[in-house]
Amino acid sequence: MSDFGRFDRYVGAHAGRFFEELIAYGRRPSVSATGEGIGAMAPLVAATLERAGARASIVESPARHPAVIAEAVPEAGEAGRTLLLYDHYDVQPPGDAAAWPSPPWEPTLRDGALFGRGIADDKGELLARIHAIETWQATMGSLPVRVRWIVEGEHEIGSPGLAGILRVNRSRLQADVCLSEGTGRDEIGNVTINLGCRGFVSVELAVRLRPIPLASSLGGLLPSASDRLMRAVVSAVGPDGRLLVDGIADVVPPPSAADEALLRAIPWSDEQARTALGIGALTPGLAGIDLLRHHLLEPFVAICAVNSGDPSWGLVVPGDARARLDIRLVPGLDPNVAVDLLRRHLSAHGFSDVAVEVLASVAPDRTDASLPAVAAAIAAARDAEGRDPVVYPLMPAYSASRVFRDELGTPTLFAGAVTNARSNLHAPNENVVLDEYLAYIRFFGRFLERLART
Amino acid sequence: MSDFGRFDRYVGAHAGRFFEELIAYGRRPSVSATGEGIGAMAPLVAATLERAGARASIVESPARHPAVIAEAVPEAGEAGRTLLLYDHYDVQPPGDAAAWPSPPWEPTLRDGALFGRGIADDKGELLARIHAIETWQATMGSLPVRVRWIVEGEHEIGSPGLAGILRVNRSRLQADVCLSEGTGRDEIGNVTINLGCRGFVSVELAVRLRPIPLASSLGGLLPSASDRLMRAVVSAVGPDGRLLVDGIADVVPPPSAADEALLRAIPWSDEQARTALGIGALTPGLAGIDLLRHHLLEPFVAICAVNSGDPSWGLVVPGDARARLDIRLVPGLDPNVAVDLLRRHLSAHGFSDVAVEVLASVAPDRTDASLPAVAAAIAAARDAEGRDPVVYPLMPAYSASRVFRDELGTPTLFAGAVTNARSNLHAPNENVVLDEYLAYIRFFGRFLERLART
Repeated sequence: MSDFGRFDRYVGAHAGRFFEELIAYGRRPSVSATGEGIGAMAPLVAATLERAGARASIVESPARHPAVIAEAVPEAGEAGRTLLLYDHYDVQPPGDAAAWPSPPWEPTLRDGALFGRGIADDKGELLARIHAIETWQATMGSLPVRVRWIVEGEHEIGSPGLAGILRVNRSRLQADVCLSEGTGRDEIGNVTINLGCRGFVSVELAVRLRPIPLASSLGGLLPSASDRLMRAVVSAVGPDGRLLVDGIADVVPPPSAADEALLRAIPWSDEQARTALGIGALTPGLAGIDLLRHHLLEPFVAICAVNSGDPSWGLVVPGDARARLDIRLVPGLDPNVAVDLLRRHLSAHGFSDVAVEVLASVAPDRTDASLPAVAAAIAAARDAEGRDPVVYPLMPAYSASRVFRDELGTPTLFAGAVTNARSNLHAPNENVVLDEYLAYIRFFGRFLERLART
Repeated sequence: MSDFGRFDRYVGAHAGRFFEELIAYGRRPSVSATGEGIGAMAPLVAATLERAGARASIVESPARHPAVIAEAVPEAGEAGRTLLLYDHYDVQPPGDAAAWPSPPWEPTLRDGALFGRGIADDKGELLARIHAIETWQATMGSLPVRVRWIVEGEHEIGSPGLAGILRVNRSRLQADVCLSEGTGRDEIGNVTINLGCRGFVSVELAVRLRPIPLASSLGGLLPSASDRLMRAVVSAVGPDGRLLVDGIADVVPPPSAADEALLRAIPWSDEQARTALGIGALTPGLAGIDLLRHHLLEPFVAICAVNSGDPSWGLVVPGDARARLDIRLVPGLDPNVAVDLLRRHLSAHGFSDVAVEVLASVAPDRTDASLPAVAAAIAAARDAEGRDPVVYPLMPAYSASRVFRDELGTPTLFAGAVTNARSNLHAPNENVVLDEYLAYIRFFGRFLERLART
């Protein structure tokens, strides 16, 4: 293996500038859901890539926001391996402004971490990879592999245009392996290698009975939209978040022996996970490997919102009610299958008045554990961290993955970690620990070298 | 009985000015919950009363907003009977502005009705009574009874200061009977006489697990506040809105034979009620006299709001959830009794993590059917409308009533109707039908005369 002494020293010497660039990115709102500030991002990303020696171009999306495609090639010309990097420049809405001690668009350093919307997901990962490419070229010379980028602007709305972009730009994006955005350290701080991702489908359940609220003195005469909605949700979702729809067992088999072996190899502690997440209690009724299996390998439902009426209104009965459910998937349970099961369940249990609308989805995907890039990532993480990474059968977070297999024939790997369990992705106080940002650059340099040797 | 020919002609001749005064009242926001615009109202009400020949004064509330106390006396001096009028100048918040075709603070005439927040509840009723007093004095001469007013500004927040105001001003407010605000025509257009009111207690149920939302990819590890809240609510409230808490049958006996007789005498039609309310369906599982009994004589729960997370947030699991329940009461089930039963129920069913906070309450009250004022009101309504009013055992809406009995020793009657079932009290598009406003003035004049003869 090459000597990474100069590489690592360069990372340390240029850390201040790296963070300044990350702060500049974080100052730009780029909310794909609302469009806030997003127009300036694709040109900024393209310019950053060009400065790092890549050729970059902006390509339109068939949906809403453009993507950036780029390539950096070894000086010697064609290299043996091609790595595709998947990142996104869009971010989640900041949510409840009052829950942010520092403003979401003003990245702020506290306790060794930088806080701001998008700092972790995904501007940190996007820039750390570019900073690694810069560091390689400044210290090691010519790149050991061809590196391609697809940086989209619609990830946080379910990547509606990504498949179309990949199809149109297939020849510029094909690669031996795609390294996706989205991984993080686990609840106890280990770097993770993830053999695929769960995928999700976000649905809105809605009951619409009357166009306007009516006085609650009439409540004895009125059907309640809230009541219908709540009963529908608790009929389909268990107290532990399990998806309880009829027929789910037929499409989701129990985890394989290989998956169970991966589960058992994960150094897991309920108490450490609880502490790392900073929460008072974990999922009711589950503990140890059963909780871990639920977290990683079983479909579950996160109730993201339930809204009927408004706390500022008076004594009225609202005419409608809605809930937003995030159904986390596993291979075998594609988004359309999950929605179909949910709709059938509601209909069979007398809830045909509950409308189900799909808001966004990402299909689940598995990566073959014998892929050479998997071994390269494990070795790179071990070298960078001084200890073994943890191999997860599926990544808890979703990311685009199957779309690369379907459109490009390229398998996807999730490896390395800019973030950790307290990074508050999608939530207030999103952050990146600066030491972990630099550790990711060191991992990435080693991954390039290991990949070139496969 | 006196000849009301001149009285009725005066009402017709001055209708335009009456409506202008109502519009001027409606233009003033006076939201007790938020304080919006409420400071100007007490002086305005006092001035209006003075113009109608009453002596008015503003008295402080021990809670938040002052009340107006007034008196108009017959020219001959002491009259045989004293009537106390109870009204309020505060209104509900306008709620969802988008649901108002015309602005809530700009009273607008459409299809013979005047639309605006507070036009019906209670500015219409307040002014119609003052206009009736003016009309009597302009056409019949000296008032036949002493008339006293208590016009409060805290009704829509549960009248927290009313008992204190009555206690301090007891000598200026005692009367043979109190005619309360709050009645309306029933679902099929009949003027109603109500022998008391249900009362209510508004409670917030809250589950607070975590201070901030977390990414829903972590949902498999997280207890759900929404789930806990929804299960708690549906355990305590039936699909028909029935309060299902343990022990409720012990404190709420079945309706008496006299109440059942009143129920059977009410001209009720499910279909007419549904049409009058402009809704697609009535309470599930109830019909005919069972639905009417539920509406009038049984405790029920209106779910006013359920909120966890926000539809504008991304893929996150909220850390808290809350619901606002309006529990409508009946005699025997005082607010504190209902809340105690609810708390015990939640605790007994494993929901000790659900906090219950009381937001507002009004105790239920019954009025003796043999009170002379009841017969006077029935006769006055019959004379004004040309048909019998309908006598309800309890008014579906709440109003202050027991506080007059407790603090002044004065029984309360709910009679006559400025509003109807489509008046949208507390809701968007609140309105008063102008013909019904004038009909109320005619009823009120006749009631004064009938009351004087008891």
